[in-house]
Amino acid sequence: MEYLVHGDLCYSTGPEHIETKENAYLHVKDGKCLAVYESLPSNCSALEIKDYRGKLVLPGMVDLHLHAPQYAYRGTKMDLPLLDWLNINTFPEEAKYRDTDYARAAYRNFVEDLKESPTTRAVIFGTLHKDATLCLMELLEESGLETMVGKVNMDRNSPEYLTEHSAEESLKNTREWLEEIPKNYRHCRPILTPRFTPTCSDELLLGLGKMMEEKGLPLQSHLSENKAEIAWVSELCPGTRNYGESYDRYGLLNHTVMAHCVHTGEEELDLLIERGCFICHCPQSNTNLQSGVSPVKHFLKKGAKLSLGTDVAGGANLSMFRALTDAIRASKLRNCLLEEHDSALNLEEAFYMATLSGGAFFGEVGSFMPDYEADFLVFSRKRQSVREESLLERLEMLLYTEKELFEMEAKYVQGRKIL
Amino acid sequence: MEYLVHGDLCYSTGPEHIETKENAYLHVKDGKCLAVYESLPSNCSALEIKDYRGKLVLPGMVDLHLHAPQYAYRGTKMDLPLLDWLNINTFPEEAKYRDTDYARAAYRNFVEDLKESPTTRAVIFGTLHKDATLCLMELLEESGLETMVGKVNMDRNSPEYLTEHSAEESLKNTREWLEEIPKNYRHCRPILTPRFTPTCSDELLLGLGKMMEEKGLPLQSHLSENKAEIAWVSELCPGTRNYGESYDRYGLLNHTVMAHCVHTGEEELDLLIERGCFICHCPQSNTNLQSGVSPVKHFLKKGAKLSLGTDVAGGANLSMFRALTDAIRASKLRNCLLEEHDSALNLEEAFYMATLSGGAFFGEVGSFMPDYEADFLVFSRKRQSVREESLLERLEMLLYTEKELFEMEAKYVQGRKIL
Repeated sequence: MEYLVHGDLCYSTGPEHIETKENAYLHVKDGKCLAVYESLPSNCSALEIKDYRGKLVLPGMVDLHLHAPQYAYRGTKMDLPLLDWLNINTFPEEAKYRDTDYARAAYRNFVEDLKESPTTRAVIFGTLHKDATLCLMELLEESGLETMVGKVNMDRNSPEYLTEHSAEESLKNTREWLEEIPKNYRHCRPILTPRFTPTCSDELLLGLGKMMEEKGLPLQSHLSENKAEIAWVSELCPGTRNYGESYDRYGLLNHTVMAHCVHTGEEELDLLIERGCFICHCPQSNTNLQSGVSPVKHFLKKGAKLSLGTDVAGGANLSMFRALTDAIRASKLRNCLLEEHDSALNLEEAFYMATLSGGAFFGEVGSFMPDYEADFLVFSRKRQSVREESLLERLEMLLYTEKELFEMEAKYVQGRKIL
Repeated sequence: MEYLVHGDLCYSTGPEHIETKENAYLHVKDGKCLAVYESLPSNCSALEIKDYRGKLVLPGMVDLHLHAPQYAYRGTKMDLPLLDWLNINTFPEEAKYRDTDYARAAYRNFVEDLKESPTTRAVIFGTLHKDATLCLMELLEESGLETMVGKVNMDRNSPEYLTEHSAEESLKNTREWLEEIPKNYRHCRPILTPRFTPTCSDELLLGLGKMMEEKGLPLQSHLSENKAEIAWVSELCPGTRNYGESYDRYGLLNHTVMAHCVHTGEEELDLLIERGCFICHCPQSNTNLQSGVSPVKHFLKKGAKLSLGTDVAGGANLSMFRALTDAIRASKLRNCLLEEHDSALNLEEAFYMATLSGGAFFGEVGSFMPDYEADFLVFSRKRQSVREESLLERLEMLLYTEKELFEMEAKYVQGRKIL
């Protein structure tokens, strides 16, 4: 499989720069980017050309944190703070996923919409139910999106109707789940998923750490989202200096994405950086649930691995364009309300987080630089503009207005057209 | 014209309550709401029934602040603060509206999209150009939306290519504009529109105050949006105790909507309340341009007249549903970042601002209570939900997810179907 993509290319090369190449060519071979050309090289004239002239071509978005079973109730009861929202909205709904028919119907809607969104890669929470999670993975594998999915672990401080009754039971379920994943899956892979420290016993976290190492699996969880949650963890885990240590003492930060980190201080940040842990910033969720605004600009300056997430359904919208612009907006409010004057993200930084920086969790993903996997989106304008616009302005408009002005014309993952 | 609307009705009756009536009837007569019935009254059985069973029926949204000539570049250069953004983005673009052909093409896009948005009433800035503003009014009159439109006044501190050279010239242009508005217009009316104090001389504001009284016209402008702007006004207007007084000393707050009021203190707030001035909160714009978050919950408690605006293009999105949920989000961040613990708006309050409270600028508008004008929207779900939802939950989902989950099936203004 080898071809050229002819269009207006935009891609991040780092936190400070978005490369824009109008009327250029992206050379794709065996699912990877080979090169970008400003004009057609003579030795490529025999190659198939995918003609997207005048259209925006950009890397697929990478969503490192969202909850598939929460999709069905997104945008409801948004005025509750985190712990109430979990008890009133989330747990009763997640309990329904013990019924695999319900799960299949709900997950079908979720996967259909994710496929039609700008996301090409995602790291996803399921529920604690093995069968429902296998069903979600089946639908995702068929979608052609590149995803990691986790069966949730939770064995304490959970409602009786949504819990595993011991660490042993939770670990057993997890091993069974891993064994039942069809061996021929190429696009959907498992990721270990302790919900968060408050609902996971020490024994469970210890067991998951061993499993992680033994099977070479990645892990996802939540960290320092909300002040009440942090105070609770500090009570539950005497001897830890910060919430991050409640995971680190079992080796859980080594190949990991931690969602939120809204209230992560210097000590915890240093630990995350040392372990190479990905921080997943979820601005809309942190706003809706009144958790706060993560100091991501500071994290960026310190060299942390940063990514973005929609956190459906703490976030009400599945679109990563929205997450990207929400990140800019939340950081601007942090900047002006706290009078920090140096915490506002700009377009280049937010675009980097949503593509190249978050993409690194999957390998060389999120850019059109040589050797990066060829995940890309093609957008056309619904209506011609009355004014002249630079390519960078068109990209910014796309990110801020989405479907109001543009429509997605094609979506490719690893060079394969999936939409 | 008399009929019943059969559907799931949601409407505000005040800041604390959204009335929800499933499978109910709204009785419309001569463009106004007569009554809401839970079941079909026997004496209405001969009336036409508009069948929107199972669909959401809610009042049209009222947008009290947006700039039509900024629509073409919304979502670009969003990382600039207000005064830079005006100089780099706004003024050069607005200058193009001296060309009426350009204006017509751009305004046609704007009006088409406004008609397809959830907005039924809007108060709109044009540019300083008489002919372009007349052209905008012509398109709006045809649209069937109820609007007020202003030719902008600006005679100082403006770029040479976008200014009126004296108060006299500006007032003369304004009188000519008013005279040239066709007498048969029923839906689009004029509103006086000094841009803001920094670009309007004392003489101009004095003249506009007289014109306002003489002709019984309303007025719109900007107030206390940004700290640099406020400091500038304080220099320009010695002897005023606050920015609000720079308008009030010429009688300009008496039938008026003032956009923003981000940094309005107690003294200014008391003045606005005393004058009955509408405050128009524009949360997305205030976030994008890093102006801050207006303490609207406090304004509400003090009894101020509050409304919402998209402020296109400080805000990038034309949808008032977005403005409504952005207002909730911005207030939540004010709440948690400033640790005020009492400044978060809830759904009921934000819905009230976007309908009943802002609607009062147009009279009895924004609800289905008796005698209110029959402006309403009908929304259907694109796909059946897997779960049971209350009507209030469905409304909240519509506001948070918009076109992702719902489509607008009909739009009525004063009982007339315009879409």
